[in-house]
Formats: sequence, structure tokens, C-alpha cells
Amino acid sequence: MHRSRLTAALVDVPEESFQEVVRFWSGALGLEAESDDDDPNYASIGEPVAGFQFMVQQVDAPARIHLDIETDDVDAEVGRLEELGAERVEKIESWWVMRDPAGNLFCVVRVQDPAAFEREARNWE
Amino acid sequence: MHRSRLTAALVDVPEESFQEVVRFWSGALGLEAESDDDDPNYASIGEPVAGFQFMVQQVDAPARIHLDIETDDVDAEVGRLEELGAERVEKIESWWVMRDPAGNLFCVVRVQDPAAFEREARNWE
Repeated sequence: MHRSRLTAALVDVPEESFQEVVRFWSGALGLEAESDDDDPNYASIGEPVAGFQFMVQQVDAPARIHLDIETDDVDAEVGRLEELGAERVEKIESWWVMRDPAGNLFCVVRVQDPAAFEREARNWE
Repeated sequence: MHRSRLTAALVDVPEESFQEVVRFWSGALGLEAESDDDDPNYASIGEPVAGFQFMVQQVDAPARIHLDIETDDVDAEVGRLEELGAERVEKIESWWVMRDPAGNLFCVVRVQDPAAFEREARNWE
């Protein structure tokens, strides 16, 4: 058995828009932006909804929004989502980038928010 | 004074992918999909996070994901977001479609979830 839940939305933007988009979403949601000291490609905008993270990410691609699913078993969850019709795109460090059946990118990541995961994750046999 | 909060993520897909994408996200999140009897362009996938709605929408455009901000004063919120750097795209019925500074579409809608709005919305002077 493993578990998973939706954990985050990420606004992916080219480098030249990054700071402006961080300022915009921080102001729009009324949350302070924090840059990630370990990885300058990410800024956290905090939790606009309890248990749901919002981030801005620099990407070498046109602007888009993607979602993250957190799980206590990345391989099992990726396999489950493949059976439902998603495709693997690439593995990056500990997470998988996938595409939904219409081509939208999303990521399957390890548990990011243990308290919310415990409270809200679904069980899969 | 008015208030607003992030209320939903919507997966926008062309008509030919709609049913397949509804089935996929319903299975991925473990939530039953409900079609909207008033508008066949929408299917609700429920609340993957308490206070946060997930929907699939048919659009005449390439697949993408967009976010909805709910507010008790659409005009005031659209004006506030414009000052932060968003642009108006079009008004549809009671809501506004806008673009963030990188071009990502989002919508400013009337309050959809009064209990979560009361609990989590930010105040703007």
C-alpha cells in the first residue's frame, strides 16, 4: 500500500520574468516570498490554502503552471498514474516529471508536508 | 475593503481530450468526477485539499492549467491585481480572465466556497 495527495501549484516562468512573477503572486496572494537558498530556481510563496504550497520556478520553456503530487512511494505512484494514462517524461533527482493525457506536465515528489499528508493523503492498494 | 483567496485549479483541455482527462485526474486524486448539468464544459473533481477545488474545463486552446482567485468584490480585486502587474483579458459573465506578468491566464471569480473564504481570505484596504 502507498499514499498520495495533491501538494502544490508551481508557476513556471522563463528567467527574465522570474522576479516580476514572484512579486506579482506574492502580492496577489498576500504571502511573503522566500527564495530557496539551495536552489535559486525556486521561490516559495507559502500556503495560500492550508496544506497547499505555491511556488514560482525558473524554467527554460514558455510560461505555464504545473501541479505536484506528493507520495510516500514515488515509484509505486508513478506506476499507478501510468496505468491511469499519464506518461513518464524524466526523472530528476528524487522526483518524476510526468504528462497527463492532454500533455500537461506534473511532478510526483516525495512527501513535502508530513502533517497535511497524514491528514489528507489517499490510500492505494 | 474587500477580500480574496486562491480557490481552485482548473485543467483546461481541448474537447477531444476532455473525458480522458476527467477520468485521469479523478483517478489520480481519488475523487469522484461530477459533470456540471448547467455547463457541459466543466467537470468538478472535488476538493483534493480542504478548501481548494479541482476542475477540468473544455477550451478551444492547447492544454494548460489555470488558477482561480475568489473575491467578494470582483472589480476591486481586478483593479488591485492590475496594479500588481496583471492584465485584463476578458470579462465572461460575472468573472474576469486575466494574465499574470509572464502570460499565465487566471480568473477572478465571485466567492465559490463561503466557509473557506471566511476562514482563509486576505483583507485588502
